[in-house]
Amino acid sequence: MPLQHPKSREKKLVVIIGGGFAGLNAAKSLANKDQVHVVLIDQRNHHLFQPLLYQVATAGLNPSDIAVPIRAQFSKVENVEIHMGRVDSVNLEKKFIVTDGVELSYDYLIVAAGAQHSYFGNPEWEEHAPGLKTVEQATEIRRRILSAFEAAENEMDPEKQKALLNFVVVGAGPTGVELAGAIADIARTVLVKDFNHINPANARVLLVEAGPKILAAFHEKLSEHALQDLKEIGVEVRVSSRVEKIDENGVIIAGEFIPSRSVFWAAGVQASRMKFTPDVAKDRAGRVIVQDDFSIENFRDTFVIGDMAHFEIEKNKSLPGLAPAAMQAGKFVSNVVLQSINGKARSSFKYLDKGQMATIGKRKAIAQYNSLRMTGVIAWLAWLFVHVLYLIGFKNRISVMAEWTWSYIFSKRGARLITSRDWKLKN
Amino acid sequence: MPLQHPKSREKKLVVIIGGGFAGLNAAKSLANKDQVHVVLIDQRNHHLFQPLLYQVATAGLNPSDIAVPIRAQFSKVENVEIHMGRVDSVNLEKKFIVTDGVELSYDYLIVAAGAQHSYFGNPEWEEHAPGLKTVEQATEIRRRILSAFEAAENEMDPEKQKALLNFVVVGAGPTGVELAGAIADIARTVLVKDFNHINPANARVLLVEAGPKILAAFHEKLSEHALQDLKEIGVEVRVSSRVEKIDENGVIIAGEFIPSRSVFWAAGVQASRMKFTPDVAKDRAGRVIVQDDFSIENFRDTFVIGDMAHFEIEKNKSLPGLAPAAMQAGKFVSNVVLQSINGKARSSFKYLDKGQMATIGKRKAIAQYNSLRMTGVIAWLAWLFVHVLYLIGFKNRISVMAEWTWSYIFSKRGARLITSRDWKLKN
Repeated sequence: MPLQHPKSREKKLVVIIGGGFAGLNAAKSLANKDQVHVVLIDQRNHHLFQPLLYQVATAGLNPSDIAVPIRAQFSKVENVEIHMGRVDSVNLEKKFIVTDGVELSYDYLIVAAGAQHSYFGNPEWEEHAPGLKTVEQATEIRRRILSAFEAAENEMDPEKQKALLNFVVVGAGPTGVELAGAIADIARTVLVKDFNHINPANARVLLVEAGPKILAAFHEKLSEHALQDLKEIGVEVRVSSRVEKIDENGVIIAGEFIPSRSVFWAAGVQASRMKFTPDVAKDRAGRVIVQDDFSIENFRDTFVIGDMAHFEIEKNKSLPGLAPAAMQAGKFVSNVVLQSINGKARSSFKYLDKGQMATIGKRKAIAQYNSLRMTGVIAWLAWLFVHVLYLIGFKNRISVMAEWTWSYIFSKRGARLITSRDWKLKN
Repeated sequence: MPLQHPKSREKKLVVIIGGGFAGLNAAKSLANKDQVHVVLIDQRNHHLFQPLLYQVATAGLNPSDIAVPIRAQFSKVENVEIHMGRVDSVNLEKKFIVTDGVELSYDYLIVAAGAQHSYFGNPEWEEHAPGLKTVEQATEIRRRILSAFEAAENEMDPEKQKALLNFVVVGAGPTGVELAGAIADIARTVLVKDFNHINPANARVLLVEAGPKILAAFHEKLSEHALQDLKEIGVEVRVSSRVEKIDENGVIIAGEFIPSRSVFWAAGVQASRMKFTPDVAKDRAGRVIVQDDFSIENFRDTFVIGDMAHFEIEKNKSLPGLAPAAMQAGKFVSNVVLQSINGKARSSFKYLDKGQMATIGKRKAIAQYNSLRMTGVIAWLAWLFVHVLYLIGFKNRISVMAEWTWSYIFSKRGARLITSRDWKLKN
């Protein structure tokens, strides 16, 4: 018998899996609603502002600048409780989940466990090309970038030294573009004064994309503009180039070997794995195909939102994997849960497109909002404004953001720490 | 043949091993001195303000708040270069060091590689009782403390739940006292609002000391006062109690088993290992016994300073392992190097005792300076003032310190991140 939560005697129990943009917003919308008790489960103790994770990877921000303990968001909320744990499977028929060996019954379930990197059938590449989804990955990328410069400084063989200063970013979506731009930026403006035997400005930053253009989700003109911007800040871009191999020595891109110990992955993503009983329909990226209220077909009390869901906005077009979309979905399904409890008709979801933006190095960005398109410094200021504003609301820490804005504009990087993977003493 | 540094043709080459308080200050004192070229080698890329490391371990500060890249300190200095690397041995006769397989000749050598934890012949305890010397150890301790509360929240067996909330700190010097106080503090003031199934304020914090009193380096009255302070904030202190065993289930202290998954080590330290040829005289803690100018007997161009040195101030009393002492020694030996180059007589070291302080939880501290002794809020404000002032000078970041002071006083902890030991994706 699955465990019945004590609160489920008096209230409807809503279980939310995942504390990302989608899950967190679902929980916030249900906070202080008398009819429900919410159990939010995440395998991490913090919510992460992923759009700025590349700043952690390039020593511009501290992990805790963009992460908040999920608990802290609900300290004063009686009807939301947080559990740190992993959920592996969902029984849709009997309405329970399995978390760390415990079966827990639910009345309503909101699955928002996000996505992870996909190495297209080459899981062995991960060791040599970490992706950028978690704090740990960001500090690992930071360690690799900074260590590469240190190793190059110590290297006496010119060929090896050159190879150490090759940085390869795979995948030219917003994350890849932002990461490549930030690496070029840190090399040419921050580290350039700090070394004696190498010139960090000579670092070669390569951005590789399998598709025919970068930032494919943006308008063609913006994509072209971003390409020019990248060239200007010294990022070498290769489109229509497929990565064929990655190992400890480097990468093979469209037949050419490029020696590098700093390869980073920003290419494919796939939905997080979750076992559903019975099985559910998924798209090629592993996303669960949901109805127009985000519920799973035939299981109207179970919803999937965020990067795990395939929600069709119109024929052959699904809801994009962007923070605003995830937040809107979270708010929407919370409302549907309440409608369902109250025996009301379920509303249908209307996506409000808030546009999208990507920054390219410093003082350059592209942004689009419906037919409005921006580039250059103006787009960058818009980008900065939106992100800083959001983080301030989120972290309640104006001073940190003010300082970051300042250091970012004036090329200081405070978080240039190389921390090893092992905590044990090594003196 | 050992490598001759190119600069050693025109200048005297000074090699400094270690970028802690001692080594960093030696390098700073030699910065821009025409007669020398300095190579500073550290296995980490950052200098760490160790006195506040326990604040990182208890989520009050970010690692980068108390760490600065060593390179950044010398960006504008021509005659100091930094190498990230490990030094394993020193050949005193032939005057070269071995760093990562490379032999490098020196004219003068300053060894300042610090100290590490000593588990008194029980290295297997480390896995279960990390110490607090590095950023990695601090974030590991933070992970363990925060995870213990999370695990307790999920635990349904009351006995196991209670055991998860047992925290044991071994060693009641300043680090142990500060860590135990901060754990009690975070449990009772920060986490207390955040959980549903446990009351974090019920956490049991045990401070264990083998000697007859805590903070033995302080005046007896201060030590007694600190003991009262600890009791007041809810730390259980056991003096004259030896730890007999530590494993994954807990500790045995003076015959009694205490179940705990959160045991932290702040007891013995020993000097970092370094192979000298020929061998040199050391004390029981592995510290090199140095002359009154910090040189090694018979090798007047090689100096050992900081926690690696045993320097006798007076009969049976050695220079204490405190930051001000290390800084003074660094400055002093730099001057001796210049005196030696210029054929002048070497001055002898005079230790300026700047006193010492330790904080006990929040708003309580003890401080002594010669015959002046302070306790309570006044000592705590003095402690805060000294540390914040130093860090501001050091980091050039007034806003961060202002904010930290604010959060510290008002019990907010921003850095409550549980980051795992493995960066690989686990969705």
